[in-house]
Amino acid sequence: MVILTDLEKQSIRETADALAQAARAATLEHFRSSTLTADNKDGSGFDPVTVADRAAERDMREILAIRRPNDAILGEEYGYQKGSSGLTWVLDPIDGTRGYLSGTPTWGVLISIRDGSGPLYGVIDQPYIQERFCGGFGVSQMLGPHGGMALKTLEARPLSDAIVFTTFPEVGTATEGQAFRAVAEKAKLTRYGMDCYAYALLAAGQIDLVIEAGLQAYDIQAPIAVITAAGGVVTDWDGNPAHDGGRVIAAANKQQHEEALELIQKSLNSGE
Amino acid sequence: MVILTDLEKQSIRETADALAQAARAATLEHFRSSTLTADNKDGSGFDPVTVADRAAERDMREILAIRRPNDAILGEEYGYQKGSSGLTWVLDPIDGTRGYLSGTPTWGVLISIRDGSGPLYGVIDQPYIQERFCGGFGVSQMLGPHGGMALKTLEARPLSDAIVFTTFPEVGTATEGQAFRAVAEKAKLTRYGMDCYAYALLAAGQIDLVIEAGLQAYDIQAPIAVITAAGGVVTDWDGNPAHDGGRVIAAANKQQHEEALELIQKSLNSGE
Repeated sequence: MVILTDLEKQSIRETADALAQAARAATLEHFRSSTLTADNKDGSGFDPVTVADRAAERDMREILAIRRPNDAILGEEYGYQKGSSGLTWVLDPIDGTRGYLSGTPTWGVLISIRDGSGPLYGVIDQPYIQERFCGGFGVSQMLGPHGGMALKTLEARPLSDAIVFTTFPEVGTATEGQAFRAVAEKAKLTRYGMDCYAYALLAAGQIDLVIEAGLQAYDIQAPIAVITAAGGVVTDWDGNPAHDGGRVIAAANKQQHEEALELIQKSLNSGE
Repeated sequence: MVILTDLEKQSIRETADALAQAARAATLEHFRSSTLTADNKDGSGFDPVTVADRAAERDMREILAIRRPNDAILGEEYGYQKGSSGLTWVLDPIDGTRGYLSGTPTWGVLISIRDGSGPLYGVIDQPYIQERFCGGFGVSQMLGPHGGMALKTLEARPLSDAIVFTTFPEVGTATEGQAFRAVAEKAKLTRYGMDCYAYALLAAGQIDLVIEAGLQAYDIQAPIAVITAAGGVVTDWDGNPAHDGGRVIAAANKQQHEEALELIQKSLNSGE
């Protein structure tokens, strides 16, 4: 674990803000433009990577090279770059590229910094709406078009009153989809299609659970920092740290996390 | 059909703007507040009606009583009120109440005015993002947080390159879900959960198709006006006017409308 002074924490927070600001400009330049292009990254499925995605990550890496040259970087587009500080910036310039390509305003820029113990500080930024959700180092706040607010997750309530989100209705494999539905079918309301914005809504006390599968490390580290700072709980489907992605359950509080985890485990075990 | 002077059209457009402005204030007052309450309107399913929904419609009706006392009003919350002008305002103060309750910024205020022939002018307003999509009387434009733009639907492209939206993955009945998937499975990308915002994206040239079932008249009349003005085509699943709601297909252009309609019809007929 890296010990950070208050000054160091302030430098990190200011740097994260500068990164988010740069990514706003780079991503908005191409958002909803008619010249938007999408490569097919792996040939096997639909994974659009836009010019904006790459430009935003390059801009963020340039800022880090000047402000935080000793920190490592893990970025969705340009991979891993070694550092010496024990700290790693984890960047996903556009989380929700499918949403971005569709013109929806629920994709986001994910920025976080971690040490060996996990994410320390994270930002979920929505450039089009101009909303920034931040969490870590004792901070938990959102700045948006109608002002700022403290982020605080919901208190526990029965699953029958809960709102559950996931991005894709199929969630992942058939087994993963079944496990998700074991929770969702008991909830009041299930919603889809929000990408990282669902995690922001959880931190903001609007929804109870986000359950997803097939995530990458850079998809989830910023949400972990933001949600944890706001009082929520994020783990994988076995209750272990979710820093490396995979199957993720994010809950507004410990009780709802336990209840959902139990239903997921029961579903997974029944299928074996 | 009601013949309108330019002055009359201007009065209608200004009134629609005033309604949208009033609804912004009323809906934002309760959006993401912790005191948000939801009634269960029909006892049989989840149909939240918020304080904000009702307040916004009352505020809009008050403005109409002063500015356009001779027009009829059909509103989601307070029903039908007779008029003498041959024109009817159709109001849905919060389209996407489930999204509203979840804190997502993709619900909208739907405002339109119709005569016997159908919608003449419509507005889709998203108060939180501060985006207003307008169409009719030769106008087709969006005003948003990053400025304004003309609305223009996409040119025809192969279905394998198309982006398709619907709000609920199940769409409607089993037969309706199957008909939707007959189109969606051939598309590049299918997205969910956007409520009326999907129609705005279609008008803005971001997506190709929106296909839904079980709509009310007040859910679709504003989208019809906005999309038609932007160059798109909206009908029911038989190719007839969709003014009264039900099963709706909205397409960016005539070719994509025909192609999708054919696949839907084929699916519906195969099930009989």
